[in-house]
Amino acid sequence: MELGLGIAEAFAKNGDHIIFNGLEENGSEIAENIGKKYGMKTAFRNSNLMTAEGGQDLIDFAYREFGRIDIWVNNAGIQYVSPVEDFPLEKYEQIIALNINSVFYASRAVFRQMKEQRFGRIINISSVHGLRASEFKSAYVTAKHGVVGLTKVLALEGAPYNVTCNAVCPGYVKTPLVEGQIKDQAKADGMSENEAVEKVMLKKQAVKSFVPVEKLGEIVVFLSAENATSVTGTTFTLDGAWTAQ
Amino acid sequence: MELGLGIAEAFAKNGDHIIFNGLEENGSEIAENIGKKYGMKTAFRNSNLMTAEGGQDLIDFAYREFGRIDIWVNNAGIQYVSPVEDFPLEKYEQIIALNINSVFYASRAVFRQMKEQRFGRIINISSVHGLRASEFKSAYVTAKHGVVGLTKVLALEGAPYNVTCNAVCPGYVKTPLVEGQIKDQAKADGMSENEAVEKVMLKKQAVKSFVPVEKLGEIVVFLSAENATSVTGTTFTLDGAWTAQ
Amino acid sequence: MELGLGIAEAFAKNGDHIIFNGLEENGSEIAENIGKKYGMKTAFRNSNLMTAEGGQDLIDFAYREFGRIDIWVNNAGIQYVSPVEDFPLEKYEQIIALNINSVFYASRAVFRQMKEQRFGRIINISSVHGLRASEFKSAYVTAKHGVVGLTKVLALEGAPYNVTCNAVCPGYVKTPLVEGQIKDQAKADGMSENEAVEKVMLKKQAVKSFVPVEKLGEIVVFLSAENATSVTGTTFTLDGAWTAQ
Amino acid sequence: MELGLGIAEAFAKNGDHIIFNGLEENGSEIAENIGKKYGMKTAFRNSNLMTAEGGQDLIDFAYREFGRIDIWVNNAGIQYVSPVEDFPLEKYEQIIALNINSVFYASRAVFRQMKEQRFGRIINISSVHGLRASEFKSAYVTAKHGVVGLTKVLALEGAPYNVTCNAVCPGYVKTPLVEGQIKDQAKADGMSENEAVEKVMLKKQAVKSFVPVEKLGEIVVFLSAENATSVTGTTFTLDGAWTAQ
Repeated sequence: MELGLGIAEAFAKNGDHIIFNGLEENGSEIAENIGKKYGMKTAFRNSNLMTAEGGQDLIDFAYREFGRIDIWVNNAGIQYVSPVEDFPLEKYEQIIALNINSVFYASRAVFRQMKEQRFGRIINISSVHGLRASEFKSAYVTAKHGVVGLTKVLALEGAPYNVTCNAVCPGYVKTPLVEGQIKDQAKADGMSENEAVEKVMLKKQAVKSFVPVEKLGEIVVFLSAENATSVTGTTFTLDGAWTAQ
Repeated sequence: MELGLGIAEAFAKNGDHIIFNGLEENGSEIAENIGKKYGMKTAFRNSNLMTAEGGQDLIDFAYREFGRIDIWVNNAGIQYVSPVEDFPLEKYEQIIALNINSVFYASRAVFRQMKEQRFGRIINISSVHGLRASEFKSAYVTAKHGVVGLTKVLALEGAPYNVTCNAVCPGYVKTPLVEGQIKDQAKADGMSENEAVEKVMLKKQAVKSFVPVEKLGEIVVFLSAENATSVTGTTFTLDGAWTAQ
Repeated sequence: MELGLGIAEAFAKNGDHIIFNGLEENGSEIAENIGKKYGMKTAFRNSNLMTAEGGQDLIDFAYREFGRIDIWVNNAGIQYVSPVEDFPLEKYEQIIALNINSVFYASRAVFRQMKEQRFGRIINISSVHGLRASEFKSAYVTAKHGVVGLTKVLALEGAPYNVTCNAVCPGYVKTPLVEGQIKDQAKADGMSENEAVEKVMLKKQAVKSFVPVEKLGEIVVFLSAENATSVTGTTFTLDGAWTAQ
Repeated sequence: MELGLGIAEAFAKNGDHIIFNGLEENGSEIAENIGKKYGMKTAFRNSNLMTAEGGQDLIDFAYREFGRIDIWVNNAGIQYVSPVEDFPLEKYEQIIALNINSVFYASRAVFRQMKEQRFGRIINISSVHGLRASEFKSAYVTAKHGVVGLTKVLALEGAPYNVTCNAVCPGYVKTPLVEGQIKDQAKADGMSENEAVEKVMLKKQAVKSFVPVEKLGEIVVFLSAENATSVTGTTFTLDGAWTAQ
């Protein structure tokens, strides 16, 4: 919920109530803390977003809790790295299920209501890998490109109803998970942590610093605003000039 | 096998032996006819490409028949049109299975051997919908964008081994299936067939004529040639200036 | 200065001092008014941005006035519509001069100082026509695509120095100029103004409303913030799903 | 005329008469040799393509020589490398003049006739730098992106008249010029020529071999064929997976 937590904080700061979903054992606690910190209502669910039922369950839960959904952020995702010829089939299928299908299932479940209420903002957290590839990430790149495609369709279908949909495509964002990877990478390559970041992790970015979580939160809030009716169907890339070269 | 048939003819004309796969009852006959017409070896299989086992089965069959695979064209695909909130879940899942997963499964099954033999050409038939969206085609656009992403990964992983991968992105191609749609569209809208083509079917293309199947065959043969080692990882779009505007 | 004015207001609201450049006779007055309204320093210049000397002159003026330039917005632009075979050569040359060359000249003149001070934000107002074409706009589309290319180069060169560069690509923005066009279009086609907007002007946008100037101002301020170091080298498109389809 | 020569040979082999244009002292001789080798008519001109008059002069010359122009390839181009803040203004202006304006001037001069004869094929040799940037190539990247934009407009305007326009975007092509650069690069970096190619020149390509000139010739002939009416308005990229990552 690292990246998701940053996005949630941005919304809470903006005065929005928030449903969290995740597998964290302390998920309810995290949600409560954010709620208290910003004086907003929050709730937590642990639906299995890989299935249509799970997506529907989460949407139903949100309606029961809050009576209305204005903004929906699809952020769940996993990664696995392997040469394609050895890629474990179950890993491929999990990535397709969580990184694409969950976006379809949840968006489908929330779409009718958003059309009827003449307001909706769907934001899909894709990736720079929704636009470009890296080797050994066949499942992830496939899924993230798929999300970009789905984003465009939802934008077109939502256009007459003030329902927008956009994808955010970050490069490397500095989350606690990534901080752990830096340490490991540095150790593995016998480099300083700074070197590991610049020469290995951010090799493809021209800017050798991570995208801050808060900046991601800002763009998501920008996309979900009332005056964003005509900002739809596209990708917002925060990638240190990765895709520029 | 319409579009596939055109591609197969282009390869047969080029002097290649061909494995067909499909659900056609007369598939063996079609394969035989092409073989006789051009004096090449052909074979037919009806593996279920939606599953990893089916993809593996087809590749295994091809090796048993010919001992070697140099070129692999992923062409299977289905379409379904519906507003996202009513999109039948089983249709979504079939489209993901056949239009994306089949590409992953078959390419994965053929990749190791292609790397070992230091030659491979994988061509994925994506679509203009791998680059742009149309409303009510959420599953198809998701899948075809996904294929474009997978194409790039395979290109990167194959690069050191002379294994290339590209996607071909056609607009509307005139197949017998489409010819039937023209008649239906004209009847439904009370238009002449020409009008139905120009105003409805090819509305998004600036060029109001279909992409000929033979032109598609030509580009696929171009991509699979020996001198195409450095032509990889990209999309070849034949779309009557659809994506230009 | 319509669109520019909106951007200027967004910066003034954000607490930035502002140099204006333009051909308006009442330019000084406009600049003063913004300055008073928001309590910021402003200045006005009427350099000829089509020439290298003009670009240099404006940058020099800005340094004399404020001693420092942190953010630079390239917004000047003109349009002309004609079939290419009849396109007046002097119109083509003016569009290249003002819509591309001015961006190069001014950015070049400000770049060294931005690198030295280890901070710079260059924002180029390109257009949806920096990504897609419309007929009869050969010069404009050429220029706006060129600006997108230049944006990427500046991002790469600025990356080690915390100098970023991005392009903003709006669809139709509702400025007084465009409001006049609506009236004319409606009269010419014998339509209501609403119809003229939906069927003619915004034909290519799925969302049938204009991009608000304030939204454009918001994204420009987002891009120029201190925490935007890794947001660089890309396009931010606000186009009502024009490019999605 | 290196790359142009390869393209010319592809056309001559295909049975086309050819006008050459260039600055070579032995241009007439080169043209004659190609003509003799393939039994086609050729002619040579040294118009200054940087000016509208030069473009018109070349088109007029071609009509006087052959009475008809079916295919037009815009291939002239120069490069210059410098940090933007030091970029010589006259180099920038030459690159804009030759790499963009020449495409506009010549295409404009040939367009009316192509529309009237209901057949035309314009092929612009852009570059991978029409899609991505490299540092220190501000003028070149600007120009090549501009060419991609112009290509799309010409495609849209030509669409009703069977006049197509496409851009070809090569990575590094092995021309004698580039062969000289390899030697120099190897010497400068104290590397073998192979290392200089893989680690420096083709750093951004996943495939560490050059695009063969003949492959470029093949795609240009493919695009200019009679059955290519609906292949228009897009880019054909031959880049060793540069843009894929």
